[in-house]
Amino acid sequence: MSDDIKALFFDMFGTILDWRTGIAQRSAALLEPLGKRLDFLAFADAWRGEYQPAMEKIRSGSSAFVKLDRLHRANLEKILPAFGLQGLKEETLVRLNRAWHQLDCWPEVGAAMPRLRHKFLLAPLSNGNISMMVALARHNGLVFDAILGAEIARDYKPRPDVYLAAAASLDLHPGECLMVAAHSSDLAAAAGCGLKTAHVARPNEYGPHTGETGPQLVVDFAAGDLDGLADQLLGRTKPSCKPS
Amino acid sequence: MSDDIKALFFDMFGTILDWRTGIAQRSAALLEPLGKRLDFLAFADAWRGEYQPAMEKIRSGSSAFVKLDRLHRANLEKILPAFGLQGLKEETLVRLNRAWHQLDCWPEVGAAMPRLRHKFLLAPLSNGNISMMVALARHNGLVFDAILGAEIARDYKPRPDVYLAAAASLDLHPGECLMVAAHSSDLAAAAGCGLKTAHVARPNEYGPHTGETGPQLVVDFAAGDLDGLADQLLGRTKPSCKPS
Repeated sequence: MSDDIKALFFDMFGTILDWRTGIAQRSAALLEPLGKRLDFLAFADAWRGEYQPAMEKIRSGSSAFVKLDRLHRANLEKILPAFGLQGLKEETLVRLNRAWHQLDCWPEVGAAMPRLRHKFLLAPLSNGNISMMVALARHNGLVFDAILGAEIARDYKPRPDVYLAAAASLDLHPGECLMVAAHSSDLAAAAGCGLKTAHVARPNEYGPHTGETGPQLVVDFAAGDLDGLADQLLGRTKPSCKPS
Repeated sequence: MSDDIKALFFDMFGTILDWRTGIAQRSAALLEPLGKRLDFLAFADAWRGEYQPAMEKIRSGSSAFVKLDRLHRANLEKILPAFGLQGLKEETLVRLNRAWHQLDCWPEVGAAMPRLRHKFLLAPLSNGNISMMVALARHNGLVFDAILGAEIARDYKPRPDVYLAAAASLDLHPGECLMVAAHSSDLAAAAGCGLKTAHVARPNEYGPHTGETGPQLVVDFAAGDLDGLADQLLGRTKPSCKPS
């Protein structure tokens, strides 16, 4: 099975990156010195909560494609009043928005990625823009072969063209590509395009016991974390369709 | 000067890669066992000779964008009769065309690139397609932050949109980007878009004493090879506008 696979495509937010803790901590570091006291995890959740609706306007064709950085900024401005954060300086808003470029990976990712890179081409297949992915890779010391995803396709997942454009840009058939994600909806869309699928459990993505503990669809691989997936893909443990 | 620069964009064919020797050697390795005897350096030159005319149809808007792999294949078929190479099998043609994915770097590049990556974002800004750049990076052990260039812009250098799209994809002003090339025409186009420019001499690109020994325009940096450019950019030698 894994011998047919040439490239791994990674969902980034949630699957590779712990966006919730990162946004909460970076926001606190920027806003607490300004005397702002708030529930920063709730702030992170509210900001992320605007993510899908903002992309939906582009996926539906009612708005032209803009980078995720632009959507994040508009979403930030939308939620500020609910947290009593009106009147922040432009410089602070810019720095808040940059928090999405400075997220940390989940703990095992840094060691698992180089193992995977010995056998496979690696690329983010994220809704994040190129500059964001470049910054996040540098921040976490990750090495990718290319930055693929939304900005290349000028559309947002789970639209099929985003998955198909990624495969085509590497001259691969969809079945030679493995989509790695913690979200069954992402994997369902990838499978619909003919990609192979790997589910990585991130049970704490939105806080303790909130994320998917396993796939909600039939997948090619399911693992408890990226290290577990690497063990399966590199033949050190038996491939599993349930979380390892 | 180099403190303003955030990213280095590399021309690849000729500047980073010795395409002429590579194409000649790979073609010989594929064709000599089939009993084909020819001047393989002349074959490489003829193939490369079709490069600019093929792109011109796309730059002028008379043809839709297709990847360089497709242009290379059409150019190959065009030159075969002149070398008595009619009737090759499809598999051989595919493997010949893949030679452009397997070129070696000039000798000093492998050591210079990691030095540059400590300070700058690095990306190819080539007319080659993404899969070709990914393969060439792997073949030579080069690490880039992103693959930019023609396929991202869906146009070919020296059209301005190719340089501007690369800067924009990293959220950089053109003046924060340094175009590194062995060809003055490439640097002139980059400078016209506001990018900074570095000339690297490749005097043997088309054979001994055929390439540019120095820039034919005013540049920000000029060096005898990539190591010399790294010395200037990292402050180990004085920046020079003449080949170092």
